[in-house]
Amino acid sequence: MTSYAERPTVEMTNPRADRVKSVARLSGRSARLKTGKFRVEGPQAVREALRSGLEGKHNVGAVQELYYQPETLQRHPDIAELVDNLDPADVFVRSCTAEVIAAMSDAQTPQGLVAVCTLVGRTEDNEPTGRYVALLCGLQDPGNVGTIIRAADAAGATATILSSGSVDVHNPKVVRSTVGSLFHLPIYQNQDVSAVVQAYRSAGWQIFAADGYGDVDLDQLQNEALQNGSRQPASQEPDLRKNTIWLFGNEAKGLSEAELELADARVAVPLYGQAESLNVATAATLCLYASARAHRSKAETSSSDATKND
Amino acid sequence: MTSYAERPTVEMTNPRADRVKSVARLSGRSARLKTGKFRVEGPQAVREALRSGLEGKHNVGAVQELYYQPETLQRHPDIAELVDNLDPADVFVRSCTAEVIAAMSDAQTPQGLVAVCTLVGRTEDNEPTGRYVALLCGLQDPGNVGTIIRAADAAGATATILSSGSVDVHNPKVVRSTVGSLFHLPIYQNQDVSAVVQAYRSAGWQIFAADGYGDVDLDQLQNEALQNGSRQPASQEPDLRKNTIWLFGNEAKGLSEAELELADARVAVPLYGQAESLNVATAATLCLYASARAHRSKAETSSSDATKND
Repeated sequence: MTSYAERPTVEMTNPRADRVKSVARLSGRSARLKTGKFRVEGPQAVREALRSGLEGKHNVGAVQELYYQPETLQRHPDIAELVDNLDPADVFVRSCTAEVIAAMSDAQTPQGLVAVCTLVGRTEDNEPTGRYVALLCGLQDPGNVGTIIRAADAAGATATILSSGSVDVHNPKVVRSTVGSLFHLPIYQNQDVSAVVQAYRSAGWQIFAADGYGDVDLDQLQNEALQNGSRQPASQEPDLRKNTIWLFGNEAKGLSEAELELADARVAVPLYGQAESLNVATAATLCLYASARAHRSKAETSSSDATKND
Repeated sequence: MTSYAERPTVEMTNPRADRVKSVARLSGRSARLKTGKFRVEGPQAVREALRSGLEGKHNVGAVQELYYQPETLQRHPDIAELVDNLDPADVFVRSCTAEVIAAMSDAQTPQGLVAVCTLVGRTEDNEPTGRYVALLCGLQDPGNVGTIIRAADAAGATATILSSGSVDVHNPKVVRSTVGSLFHLPIYQNQDVSAVVQAYRSAGWQIFAADGYGDVDLDQLQNEALQNGSRQPASQEPDLRKNTIWLFGNEAKGLSEAELELADARVAVPLYGQAESLNVATAATLCLYASARAHRSKAETSSSDATKND
């Protein structure tokens, strides 16, 4: 069988075809809800979508349709191989002209690859697993949400959870700024903040509110965690070495009083200069990496505990 | 004298007036270069511009013109007071209708306040001072540059330096995403990367390249710095407690080979999950905060060294 990258014919040339329009319409939430699908663009993100299906990791985010410019697959042999391994009975694969790809996309610079996938956002209740997760409460800016999902992935968080009232994770700008991380860790959407907190608390997790006005200093927590290493955390004290769910609030308003009330501690990223605050995505990155470091150091300083900490 | 916030007349009502157009034109680089001015919008950023002038901190970024909706000053009495203290001989202050403010701005939601200031980007050589600074090499995305300037401010960096070929810091999107931090620390622009590195190296600074493929792990450096506290750093080893200039590279291409060659060490933010990389603004935040923490811990664990570390 000839590789898709080497086939001579371009199959889709009409940017006004119905199929092209239906892919373009996935920029809108109602089209996504109606079809149960969303659009993923560009080599990095499409590669992660394809890999995630290959590994059968999640029963969400399955690639259903794949559109490519032949030269893009030629430039990315690893993606070409993933595409060649797709079962044509499952996935609709077509080569396209640059005009067709551009008409499907709302990116400023379409990058020659578009996938249509089943939605990744889960709406069922989530079971607390792992050691630290992010809970986004009413976040509205797609770039922030995408950046936090990517940072949560990088920091090794087990899940990202979004409250109802947060932006849809399938929004094209969110998808773009996650650069594939949407396919790496489970994403929960439309969640009730207090129900989630209740579930994690029942499972013995600590609840941290990231709050610029908080009375607990992130860097101090971090130093204590590194100094204490594998020693048992005191049961009532805020401690980064415990399993932690981090609450992050709306860009303009922060966390509401009701959300702050849910937390065991209000943790502030220290400001060493004159800035009055940090962007929420920046703050979230620092908080999640602080959790990552504390859990690592706990694992590294302890050999007897090692099996608990993977 | 009546407070500006309480004056009954709105002085500027014509959104097509020449003066309005000339403020709007500051969205473009050529108009900024020609006039030597740039536009600042919204309460937070305008407040910082006014304060910075009040403190006479920098001989740049002086407010020259100020346009306000009366209700905005009424909602922000602290800003109203700063405006009342301006010398009318120095600053052109006018109340405006919402339409006039909107016509001056390219923000999606203009926030009732616009200032026109002298440029803040310095083009002269910079003297190495302080303990850690950021050097942006060819960064193009205004949101990234703004976020890094804000994070550098928050982390207590002494300066942010931009290479020639980076986006102009007076670009409206950069200005917006710094949320006033442009007025907090000196910003150098159009700098030659190797000349800057040479100047810092001569002053005894360590040169770190932030590089996803780097062989030095940021978190390991951080742990070592915290463990070593005030003990003298080994002279040849990478050590966050030394004065450090951080090089950050272009969004798509990273640092060039030539830029990497300039560094004493290539430092990677560890990736604990499956993400292949971090956004440059996210990585820069983690790097600069790591420097901040290491210098703090050095200062805190040492009383005899305390005077060296302010």
